[in-house]
Amino acid sequence: MNFPTPNAYLVPTDGSFVVADAPQAPPEGTKRKDSKKTLRALRDELQELQHLLYAHDHHAVLLVFQAMDAAGKDGTIRAVMRGVNPTGCRVWSFKQPSATELQHDFLWRTAMRLPERGNIGIFNRSYYEEVLVVRVHPEYLEGQNLPSSVDRTDIWKHRFESIRDHEQHLARNGTVILKFWLNVSKDEQRRRFLSRLDEPEKNWKFSKGDVTERGYWDAYMDAYEEALRETSRPWAPWYAIPADDKPYMRLQVARVLVDTLKGLEMSFPDVADEDRAHFEAMREKLRPEA
Amino acid sequence: MNFPTPNAYLVPTDGSFVVADAPQAPPEGTKRKDSKKTLRALRDELQELQHLLYAHDHHAVLLVFQAMDAAGKDGTIRAVMRGVNPTGCRVWSFKQPSATELQHDFLWRTAMRLPERGNIGIFNRSYYEEVLVVRVHPEYLEGQNLPSSVDRTDIWKHRFESIRDHEQHLARNGTVILKFWLNVSKDEQRRRFLSRLDEPEKNWKFSKGDVTERGYWDAYMDAYEEALRETSRPWAPWYAIPADDKPYMRLQVARVLVDTLKGLEMSFPDVADEDRAHFEAMREKLRPEA
Repeated sequence: MNFPTPNAYLVPTDGSFVVADAPQAPPEGTKRKDSKKTLRALRDELQELQHLLYAHDHHAVLLVFQAMDAAGKDGTIRAVMRGVNPTGCRVWSFKQPSATELQHDFLWRTAMRLPERGNIGIFNRSYYEEVLVVRVHPEYLEGQNLPSSVDRTDIWKHRFESIRDHEQHLARNGTVILKFWLNVSKDEQRRRFLSRLDEPEKNWKFSKGDVTERGYWDAYMDAYEEALRETSRPWAPWYAIPADDKPYMRLQVARVLVDTLKGLEMSFPDVADEDRAHFEAMREKLRPEA
Repeated sequence: MNFPTPNAYLVPTDGSFVVADAPQAPPEGTKRKDSKKTLRALRDELQELQHLLYAHDHHAVLLVFQAMDAAGKDGTIRAVMRGVNPTGCRVWSFKQPSATELQHDFLWRTAMRLPERGNIGIFNRSYYEEVLVVRVHPEYLEGQNLPSSVDRTDIWKHRFESIRDHEQHLARNGTVILKFWLNVSKDEQRRRFLSRLDEPEKNWKFSKGDVTERGYWDAYMDAYEEALRETSRPWAPWYAIPADDKPYMRLQVARVLVDTLKGLEMSFPDVADEDRAHFEAMREKLRPEA
């Protein structure tokens, strides 16, 4: 296992990530048509690999998606994963935590939904919200029922540490973790919001809160920078994917996933010689009925 | 809502079902190629309907699959559901209950996994195992930690009642329940077992226990007959689908699902006039940035 798979958008795992240097557009000359075509081919590969992952039944795969609104999380999950067998793939969308969830520590609600061996689990938003939106709006902490003894000064440092420890534990026990930040530009977000307002079929995706959150753009970029610096590690890398061109973005996510799965040592389960020895007896038992 | 949707394979909801009369083969002259082609078209419709179900967000859909081994549950789920967005579709496979699950009543482990509004939930086996395999092997009851006060004489009657009540409660609260019995013939099962033994890529699907269970065929048919009689009801119908021809079986399942979804009153969420009134202000807020 050669992990993380080398990739142009891999976030350095030594804490040196700089948001301002991360591209939001694809390389010059990228053609949407080519991206779509390559994605279709990768989807076929992914189908085969998922089947093998499921049969092999030793690794779990966790994909985490985080992004600003309208960056394309939902569409990317749909476009990359739609060919796979849903028996082995579950998507969980994490919105504002419920009252019940706030009664627990901040990793509880996602831990319940971690993928089993042989499965791909997808987190559409995740525990990273706890160091992104909550960081930009620290007043949300007031609603989290934290005992007064919790140290507020170092709370972000402690949360990063909790996340790193949690992911390391998972990785050591067989979960392959890939985290994607879909890096959309502020201008492209504006265009996508306008099309949600202008196209009736997209109206339902629009919420006033999205425009309010856009007002905190710079604070969010700072929060992403620190979160990716603090939590992109060899056992749970982040990828900062250019998100202004949707077909290119989807293709890059598919590529990381396919390359990673190809790098895993997997095989169809071996039937033990002892069991195989019974095959002829089984055949004998079935044949005379014909 | 016109439910259940009329269909040739709908199990009567008045307790008159007769296993021996249920066809296992498709109608004379059915062509595999035609079934596959129609299924592809239905899959496209299903994709649209799922999107609407998800956006509308009022109904949950629960699909229950039960069958003898090798009847084709897994393949049918894959073939019918592979085009849908996994964000709104989860498959749960229920095997032998765990020690933890046996600490609860027999509906607990599946109740936790019931689909949310807007979602399709699929049970690959289900609480019906409790009146099928456990009925054929009543000795399994000994492992279920039931208090000695539980009446063993009427246990099946009580379980049927529990299931009917549970499903009626769910249906009254917005869950559309469709149950499929994939009705494979004993001879076709034999052929499929042999191909699992003979084709190396299929070896991992074979288990000795399957051949043992086959020995209880008649007891299983009696258990299915009574279960379907006792639990096919207008609010939670069973469909007894001929399973000897895989493309035809998959097509019938897709048809019931698509017809049922089409019969639901669904629409994209209406944006309230009050909210829509803010759209122009939102546009104004976004435009000057250009």
